[in-house]
Amino acid sequence: MRASASDAVDSAVEILQRVRAQRPRVHCITNTVAQTYTANLLLAAGAVPSMTLSADEVEAFVGGADALLVNVGTLDAERRIAIGLAVDAAAEREVPWVLDPVFVDRSPARAKFVRALLAMRPGVVRLNAAEFATLAEIAPADADAEALAGFAADLATTVALTGEEDVVTDGRRTAGVANGHPWMAQITAMGCAGAALVAAFRAVEPDPFRATAAALLALGVAGEWGAETSRGPGSLAIALLDALAGLDRAGLCERARVF
Amino acid sequence: MRASASDAVDSAVEILQRVRAQRPRVHCITNTVAQTYTANLLLAAGAVPSMTLSADEVEAFVGGADALLVNVGTLDAERRIAIGLAVDAAAEREVPWVLDPVFVDRSPARAKFVRALLAMRPGVVRLNAAEFATLAEIAPADADAEALAGFAADLATTVALTGEEDVVTDGRRTAGVANGHPWMAQITAMGCAGAALVAAFRAVEPDPFRATAAALLALGVAGEWGAETSRGPGSLAIALLDALAGLDRAGLCERARVF
Amino acid sequence: MRASASDAVDSAVEILQRVRAQRPRVHCITNTVAQTYTANLLLAAGAVPSMTLSADEVEAFVGGADALLVNVGTLDAERRIAIGLAVDAAAEREVPWVLDPVFVDRSPARAKFVRALLAMRPGVVRLNAAEFATLAEIAPADADAEALAGFAADLATTVALTGEEDVVTDGRRTAGVANGHPWMAQITAMGCAGAALVAAFRAVEPDPFRATAAALLALGVAGEWGAETSRGPGSLAIALLDALAGLDRAGLCERARVF
Repeated sequence: MRASASDAVDSAVEILQRVRAQRPRVHCITNTVAQTYTANLLLAAGAVPSMTLSADEVEAFVGGADALLVNVGTLDAERRIAIGLAVDAAAEREVPWVLDPVFVDRSPARAKFVRALLAMRPGVVRLNAAEFATLAEIAPADADAEALAGFAADLATTVALTGEEDVVTDGRRTAGVANGHPWMAQITAMGCAGAALVAAFRAVEPDPFRATAAALLALGVAGEWGAETSRGPGSLAIALLDALAGLDRAGLCERARVF
Repeated sequence: MRASASDAVDSAVEILQRVRAQRPRVHCITNTVAQTYTANLLLAAGAVPSMTLSADEVEAFVGGADALLVNVGTLDAERRIAIGLAVDAAAEREVPWVLDPVFVDRSPARAKFVRALLAMRPGVVRLNAAEFATLAEIAPADADAEALAGFAADLATTVALTGEEDVVTDGRRTAGVANGHPWMAQITAMGCAGAALVAAFRAVEPDPFRATAAALLALGVAGEWGAETSRGPGSLAIALLDALAGLDRAGLCERARVF
Repeated sequence: MRASASDAVDSAVEILQRVRAQRPRVHCITNTVAQTYTANLLLAAGAVPSMTLSADEVEAFVGGADALLVNVGTLDAERRIAIGLAVDAAAEREVPWVLDPVFVDRSPARAKFVRALLAMRPGVVRLNAAEFATLAEIAPADADAEALAGFAADLATTVALTGEEDVVTDGRRTAGVANGHPWMAQITAMGCAGAALVAAFRAVEPDPFRATAAALLALGVAGEWGAETSRGPGSLAIALLDALAGLDRAGLCERARVF
């Protein structure tokens, strides 16, 4: 294990232990497809999810939370309103928040909505290559680490580009995680739930860059470890939860591949 | 096995067999996070779930159901309206209903809404310690069996306080179930789905106290049995469904711990 | 294996390979209970699901999709509007669409809504015996293959009646699939997810009858294969996803029972 891998493992172990000890509350405004798996992933990590989006309640839930996740999948009118209220409440109470602009490449209305959210300064943005290219207004072929660092610097946020390999940057520092398994791309909400895990790690770790890299390493290793006892994407979705709940330094050390 | 355990097992076996034979319809107005697991738990037990909340339809669905579950998680405007219509329809058609005041401790708006529902006389209320303390307006440390019995007597309902151990009371009788597994607390919607199982048992058993105690015993034993072949909360969520679908007298007798 | 079974297997293998190679986008307006399992079933088959229902976005998503699924479960006001917009967009852009009239037998409002959708000419309709009897206005006992063929001919559509055995007809041709496992009836959204799989197969196969029969055969065989390593409905739901992701000619040949 290289020194950087050792540091990354130390960081992931330490932050995961804080999540388990402090049990941070993570309020999630996320799409209905992702809600159950997201809640189970947060619970497996030791965090406490809540998911209401009633206009009457969302400010109370965000105000009582340690982090907020905003995912724009399955947008509907009430969800849009809830997102606005939640982000305002997070700003006012200094609750850190993570933005997941799911499928922003598929609909102009969604792209417009997400641009307005980016202006509200999320602490972390999680996206895939197609979503990044759309928001950065570049060709998919130009969506490289350098462009990502520029995007992060411009927004003054931490950005995580997830895919076969994950790249995390705050414009100044960059980290990569090569863990995971191809079946993870065949499990719905894996990316969305991963963004929620980033929020849980951020809830207990003040450095968004460090929190994000640690969460993605924990998720990738849990996926790889779970795949060892799985037969396909169905069983991996379940085994990953077990692996995350049982993840320890030895499991991380043995598998971590960071760059 | 003590005499009370033997009685509790007999009761659970007998009611579960009735659920499997009669296949009661259970209409559930529940939060979006819990819907899928709740439906699968009801199906594993032999009941038939439905979950619509359209104002045009909810009365027809409740009118055709054998029991109703009202869970106040992920409240939104349409869900609030649906709950009102559903509870009115249940009262008119004498369909028994179970109330699950999820996270009532987290939002004043929700507490107000739940108090109005309590006045509509649910047959059973399922809650955890924080939710009970909020509704009973007592300190969490005072949330004991005596306070619970007083609360049930005041409301003239059966109350189930679930947690590491479950306590059921109708103010006059009290039963306890010590089954279950710590991983169950790391599975989203376990409590919500448990309340739906109470509704399914109540659909075929006129005594709410007996139905509730039997459902919680069946759930706790299924969880404990499932944990024997599980590696963590992910696999337990699945194994519990298998265990409930296959639960029989022997499985209950071997594991039941009631007090 | 009879000649018809051999043909059916060839067809299912070939269409499944096209799904895996072309990765069709399937936009699903489906009930909240079914969303996650539907998405996972589509991903296991190789398709790409999307599920938004915002009025601002649904036309862009349908316009960019290769097939559309409309499922009327958990109807609410926004979902009704989304369905209308989606079906109009599908007609305009010639995107094939599949209708699943879940629980149409339970509510007059829903029956009226579904009749209007049938008039919009879905390419395939998937239903169970109670739903068919309601829409065909016949007694459940009269819901046989002949009545089904007449119903399909009248509507000029392909109809799949699913149950212990599945029957597919376009009024002219009829095929049957006897695969599957009784536990599949205890898994929520199995029928809904099956209809989404039909949409994925239809996305890459122009003949709706052939696409539907192939999808139901693949689903039935995946369920039967998955059951070989399952302990109940909980584990079967997971094993079926693994089986579908790994399904090949040998697995189909060994198990296909068509009539």
